[in-house]
Order: sequence, then structure tokens, then C-alpha cells
Amino acid sequence: MFVSETQLIVRYAETDQMGIVHHSNYPIWFEAGRTDFIRELGMPYSAIEEEGILLPLIRLECHYKGFAKYEDEIKVKTSIKKLTYTRIIFYYEIYKNNEEKPITTGETEHAWTTRNLKPLNLKKHSSHIYDLLSGALQDN
Amino acid sequence: MFVSETQLIVRYAETDQMGIVHHSNYPIWFEAGRTDFIRELGMPYSAIEEEGILLPLIRLECHYKGFAKYEDEIKVKTSIKKLTYTRIIFYYEIYKNNEEKPITTGETEHAWTTRNLKPLNLKKHSSHIYDLLSGALQDN
Amino acid sequence: MFVSETQLIVRYAETDQMGIVHHSNYPIWFEAGRTDFIRELGMPYSAIEEEGILLPLIRLECHYKGFAKYEDEIKVKTSIKKLTYTRIIFYYEIYKNNEEKPITTGETEHAWTTRNLKPLNLKKHSSHIYDLLSGALQDN
Amino acid sequence: MFVSETQLIVRYAETDQMGIVHHSNYPIWFEAGRTDFIRELGMPYSAIEEEGILLPLIRLECHYKGFAKYEDEIKVKTSIKKLTYTRIIFYYEIYKNNEEKPITTGETEHAWTTRNLKPLNLKKHSSHIYDLLSGALQDN
Repeated sequence: MFVSETQLIVRYAETDQMGIVHHSNYPIWFEAGRTDFIRELGMPYSAIEEEGILLPLIRLECHYKGFAKYEDEIKVKTSIKKLTYTRIIFYYEIYKNNEEKPITTGETEHAWTTRNLKPLNLKKHSSHIYDLLSGALQDN
Repeated sequence: MFVSETQLIVRYAETDQMGIVHHSNYPIWFEAGRTDFIRELGMPYSAIEEEGILLPLIRLECHYKGFAKYEDEIKVKTSIKKLTYTRIIFYYEIYKNNEEKPITTGETEHAWTTRNLKPLNLKKHSSHIYDLLSGALQDN
Repeated sequence: MFVSETQLIVRYAETDQMGIVHHSNYPIWFEAGRTDFIRELGMPYSAIEEEGILLPLIRLECHYKGFAKYEDEIKVKTSIKKLTYTRIIFYYEIYKNNEEKPITTGETEHAWTTRNLKPLNLKKHSSHIYDLLSGALQDN
Repeated sequence: MFVSETQLIVRYAETDQMGIVHHSNYPIWFEAGRTDFIRELGMPYSAIEEEGILLPLIRLECHYKGFAKYEDEIKVKTSIKKLTYTRIIFYYEIYKNNEEKPITTGETEHAWTTRNLKPLNLKKHSSHIYDLLSGALQDN
């Protein structure tokens, strides 16, 4: 199974008055991880959009187990949990400062849609994208 | 059961290149709903923080069923789903332009903690806050 | 001269670890003010975009004189400082909790462009919009 | 004069419905540049805060000359424009995809303050920080 890694530094703007990263930033970090995951597979997400395919979220889940602070070094590990012709679920683990346990885990479920946000069958519409993602689910 | 309502207008900055509200804004709208919910109960959240109590998120779930656009009128309905001495779960429904069905639903689970983010027992630490929230769960 | 007023409540996500509103939120509040200003003139900004006109920023200036905190009540006063066929400058004052002095003032300068971000002459392209904005600059 | 360089990839959440990066993100990228600038001088900004010194913005200026899009590679060049005992002005240039001309330039002016946001004299309070920054203004 292919797992990508994305490195980030916590921005001041991402903190809140608790002195920790505000929880709404984790979905954005998941997205940065997803961007890298797809680009490293060989197809930037902007190229997917140019084929007329959008990937809106239909479900988001985050489990917060720890906290990150300003200037912490963040690593996002991204992989595919499930792929069908009409949906895809990504799974994420977020680590800070090379600690062993993730501070946050989560998943996002997306529908494959047209530019007008109508559902589409990815295998029929762009089988090369489906095959690329499907390959990323296999063991090496 | 007490349900609060929060009105918002979609900001341009909240849209993305799909032309819709970026999904990371919904947790922020949930939070705006939570702020109003607690204030309308008679105790602003800032007053809770002044008692040395923080309420960090430990779980976030969003279900996206529709889309909102720039300038749409948003209504956030907030209620308590579950309350214990150590945790609270809020439930949210987000509506646009007075439509009947919500475009997004979700919940957030929080731990009651000290300023140093150590768990605390809300009933022991500040029973008046526990009782206030507990009352909001009862039927009228 | 027409001046619009926009009311906001400071969101928790808008605070940072200094315990005050992060400065990057003021441009977003300016934008919320601009949205209301244009809508109250009788033409929502989304209607302007539907005519094929965009209004990207070319200059932003903010002067921070005070601080806002979580749950503060914010008022944005928006007006037009200057209007030409190719540019528009908006001016903003941000007040908190009905104080007499603004905590932040600022201005944004925008170019009128096509959907492809090419400059256009607003008077030639859509004189009714130019006249509407021009009227807002006049004394009552 | 010391100039730091910060690399970023444009996030999807940073785009708006014009299909370009929303202007409110540039001040956040300036801040990421400032963070790196100070860290590379040998003193992370979090260490400055631990000495009881805050650096709130009092003025922000951005000049937008071009546009960035999702997945663009961004470089922030940061330097000090002016340093006094009570104020500091940083200057920024933002480049995309190794182009020769910056898409955005800007500056931020900050006051040196205590944790309670009262002005302080940096030379008196922490002369080693003043000297470090002053050195970064000199030619090599």
C-alpha cells in the first residue's frame, strides 16, 4: 500500500487562544497530504480537475489524541482506505516532531463528480485514474 | 431540549476554486453555533475559560449532503447530544437559505480540561456549569 | 456618502496564541463589509460576477490600533474612498463592543477585470454598475 | 543584509471561487516567512515569546501584482526593512514557480510589547535579541 508523507511547520495563524493548533486546521493538513499523495502517484490533482472531475467531500472524521503548537514540525501520512467506482476514502495520521504516536488521525470520504457536482463513475469516465489509485491500494 | 440558532452569511474567503464553501469552514461554523448555544444558556464560553476550564475537541464528524455558495444565508442549529462529567457531545445541523433539509450535519466531542489540558470532572470542578448544560438536555 | 455597517461576533478560530484576533482576519472582515456594502446598494457581488466582472485586490493596507478578543461584537463600517473606470478603493473602520474609536482601519484597492483577470473599463462594460457605485460616493 | 527563503505549496483551501489564492493568505505566508527568518537567525520566535515579548502587528501592506493557483510552488523572501528599539518592519517578496518577478510584495510593522501588550524597549528588555536582529540588517 502506498503511503505518502507531507512535512509542514505549524503557522502562528493556525494557533488559537488555548495556545495550540485550532482543530479546524487538521482537515486542511489532511488536504495537503491528499494533494501530495495524488501528485506522487504521478497525477497532480489539478490535472484531475482539468479532466472535468471534482472530488468534493461527503464525510470528514477527525480523532484528536494530542496537541500541536506553533513551530512544531508536522508530518502527514496519507493512504487510501477504500476505493470504489463512485467513492474514495483517504486515511490520515498526523505526527509532530518525529514522535512515535500520531496526535491526530482521520479520514475523508469523497464522491467523484462532474464540474457541476453530479456523481460520475470514475472507472467509466477516466479508467486510467481509477487504475492509478487502485494500484496505490495494492501491496508492493 | 434546547436548540440554538446562529445566522451567518457565506464569506468570499470561505469559497474555494470549486465555487463552493470549502469543507474546512463547517467546523468553524459549528464552533460559532456552540458559542451562541452556550451564551444563550446564560454563560458565555469566555466565562467558562475564566473559571480555568477548557473544552478541547477530541472528535469531529461532518456529513456533507449539499453545498453552500458565496452570500448564501446560513443557519446553524446547535444542541447537546450527550453530557457526562468528563465529556460533552454537541450536534449541529447547517441549513442554507431557509431550505428544509440541512446541507451539513455533524458532531463534536470535547473533553473538560484544566488550562494545562489535563482532564477534569466538570461536576466536581464547577457543578453550576454541569447543571446548566444538563438542563439544556431536558425536554421543556 | 453611503456607509454600510456589518455586525460580526469574533469566532474562537479567529484568535491566536496571543489571545487576540489574528491580524489575517481583518482583511476577511473588510471583505464581509464590502459584500454588505455592495448588496445594500442594490446589487449583490455575486450578480456582478455573473456579469463576467471580477474585482481582484491589487493593494491591501491595515492599521491596527487595538485588539479584539473572542466573543467581542465587531462592527465594520465600509465606504468608497475612490472610484475610477478601472479601479475602486474601499475604506474600512472596525469597531468593537460599541467603542468610539476603531480598533483597525484599512483600505483595499481593486481592479475591474474580466473572468480571465484581464483589466476592463467598468464604465464601458457595465455603466449601470459604475453609476450605482458613483452614486454611493455622493453626499446625500 | 540577511534574507531568508521559505518554500510553500498552495493548498486547495487557500483558493477562492476566482480560482486563485485568496488575498487573505498572503499575510499568513508573510508570517511563515517571518518565522523562518527569525529561526534561521538562531532564535525561534517561540523562544522570544518565552522571554515575555510579543510582536503584534500594527501595520500591514500588500501589493498584489500577480496570482497564484492551487499546487503552485511559492517562495517567500523575508528581510528586515527597519529596526528601532520599539518597532520592527519586515519586508517580503513572494514568488511562484521560480518566476523572476514577485507576484506579491508587502511589509509588516510590529511593536515590541510585553505579554499584556504594553509597549517595551527591546534594547533595554533583551539587548541580545536587538543585537541579533540588528546584525541581520548589516551587509555581509
